[in-house]
Formats: sequence, C-alpha cells, structure tokens
Amino acid sequence: MEAAIELFGRNGFDQTTAEDIAKEAGLTERTFFRYFSDKREVLFYGADELKEHIKTLLLDAPLDVAPLEAVVGALEKAGRIFDERRDFVKKRQTVIASNPELLERELLKLDGISASMADTLINRGVVEQVATVTAEVGMTIFKIAMRNWAVSGGEKALSDTMRGLVEDLRRYWML
Amino acid sequence: MEAAIELFGRNGFDQTTAEDIAKEAGLTERTFFRYFSDKREVLFYGADELKEHIKTLLLDAPLDVAPLEAVVGALEKAGRIFDERRDFVKKRQTVIASNPELLERELLKLDGISASMADTLINRGVVEQVATVTAEVGMTIFKIAMRNWAVSGGEKALSDTMRGLVEDLRRYWML
Repeated sequence: MEAAIELFGRNGFDQTTAEDIAKEAGLTERTFFRYFSDKREVLFYGADELKEHIKTLLLDAPLDVAPLEAVVGALEKAGRIFDERRDFVKKRQTVIASNPELLERELLKLDGISASMADTLINRGVVEQVATVTAEVGMTIFKIAMRNWAVSGGEKALSDTMRGLVEDLRRYWML
Repeated sequence: MEAAIELFGRNGFDQTTAEDIAKEAGLTERTFFRYFSDKREVLFYGADELKEHIKTLLLDAPLDVAPLEAVVGALEKAGRIFDERRDFVKKRQTVIASNPELLERELLKLDGISASMADTLINRGVVEQVATVTAEVGMTIFKIAMRNWAVSGGEKALSDTMRGLVEDLRRYWML
C-alpha cells in the first residue's frame, strides 16, 4: 500500500479517508473494508506475514545459540526485506510518528511479533519470563535500529545498524 | 478509579458506558469527560504522575551506576506504590488483557515512560540509541515482573519479582 502512504504523507492521515485510499488503489470502499478492518491497518499491511517469517527464522536457529543472539539473528535476517525500501520505511515512520493512534497500533503489532518469538523461545526450553523479556528486547533493538537506519544516509544495510546497536549495548551492559 | 475497574470487571469494558462510570463515581457525564478524554483513560489514571515520579528517581541515581542498573533501580523504587494494591493491579490487568484497544493504550503509556527515561539517560551522557533501548528494556522488565507478580500468591514485593527477573536475565545473557 505504498500509494496510501504517499496520500497520508501528502494530505495527512486524519484528512485522508478510506474512500480516498480505495479510489487511489482502484477499489470500491466496500472492497477496501473487506481487506482492512480500519484505516490504520493500511499501514500494517504484511505485518502478519512478517511475524510468521520471523518465527520461521527463529525456529531455524541452532539450539546452542543463546536466546538473545537467536532473536537478534532472526530479526537481522527478516530485516533484509526492508533494505531495498528505505525510502518507503522512512515515509511510513513519519506518518506513524505523526499520530498517537498509529503509534498505539504499531506498538500492538510489535508486541504480537514479540509474543510469537517468546513462544518459540519457550519451546526451545527458555524459562517463560526470560523468554518474554528477551523477545521484547530483540524487538526493541529492531525498532530502534529501523528508526535510525530509515533516517540515515549512506549504503549501510539495516542488519549493520542492528549489529552496531547490539555492539554498543554489549559495551554499556558489559555483555 | 477503583470503582470503574470493578464495573469493567463485572460488566465488561465494552458494555460499561462513560455514563455508568460517572454515575458510580457521583459525577455527571460532562464532568467525567473533563477529566478523561475517553473511556480508556480511566484505566490510566495516575500514569503521568508515575512517569514524573520515575523520572525523578532516575535523576537521583548516582552517576557511576550503569544505565540499566539505574533504570531498574528507579523502577523498583517506583513499584513500591503497587505493593499494597496487588488485587487492584490484578483486576486492572485482567480488564486490559481482555481488550486490544486497552492493550494498545497501555503500550503507548509505557512507551511514554520509556521515552522520558531515555531522555534522562541521554542527559546523563548515554549515547542516544543505547539510552532508548536501555529505557525500553527496563520498562519491559517492569511490565513482565508486574504481570507475574500480580497473579502470584505469597508476600513477595514487586521489587523482589523484578530483582529475580533481572537475575534470571543475567544468567541467560551472561551479564
């Protein structure tokens, strides 16, 4: 839904109606609401697929890899799909940052990914509350790296930004 | 707003109107909306004060304390206000868990506290992205410890649950 993001960026999220988006995408409003339960969902198109993709990557991590490393590794690999779309990610983040309701929805989606990773860690034998915190820490690293990467110039891949952040944390936390 | 939580618990959040809550609290609906911008806000009464309190506690941490330790320490101290109110915390969490819109709002509030702690860490000289992640990790530890503590029996204080979780993480992450 890149066209919708362009509309939001140009006219503002509140000022853009579902009808506007549907028209831009060549859909009727009725069809639009068959795909999206509300206008906010347009910004989270593909979020469920991303969640499943991350889960699969985490399941594939060797069992002798420590939980946080496994989580960060899965997120780094998943993040590769964004490398070619930095401009889109940046525009999307600007729209989300402009509206607390969108930020709420974004946090809920990230929470869903994090809960799914925690389940996978529990299946790997990690104690429940450690699994939950570790998954959330991974998501936080992903979210912050994504924000910084989106606004940064240069040719750096998202995974490099994540790796750099993990190194900074290791230094500060003495991991 | 303990009375409102009781109402939500008894009748469901969606089935309880602002009018019901206002009546229970002896307010007119108009007065209710002067205090709360929407029905969800009732569950987050005092959240701004908590944020300010945590910020003050973090400002008071000696400068030679490592960032994550300073954050966890401030949250442990702030958490003491909940020790006498475990039953209330538990009921509140049950209501929030029952409704994705409430969970969204909760995540946004926690994000606000975390952003405020990150600012304080930056003022202490911590690099921005490390400050952001560290503050969020602290909030995650707080949130998960709170959930576990609320449903646990026994006489354990919230700060003990937090401390136990931090110890578990140290073992798993080899901090």
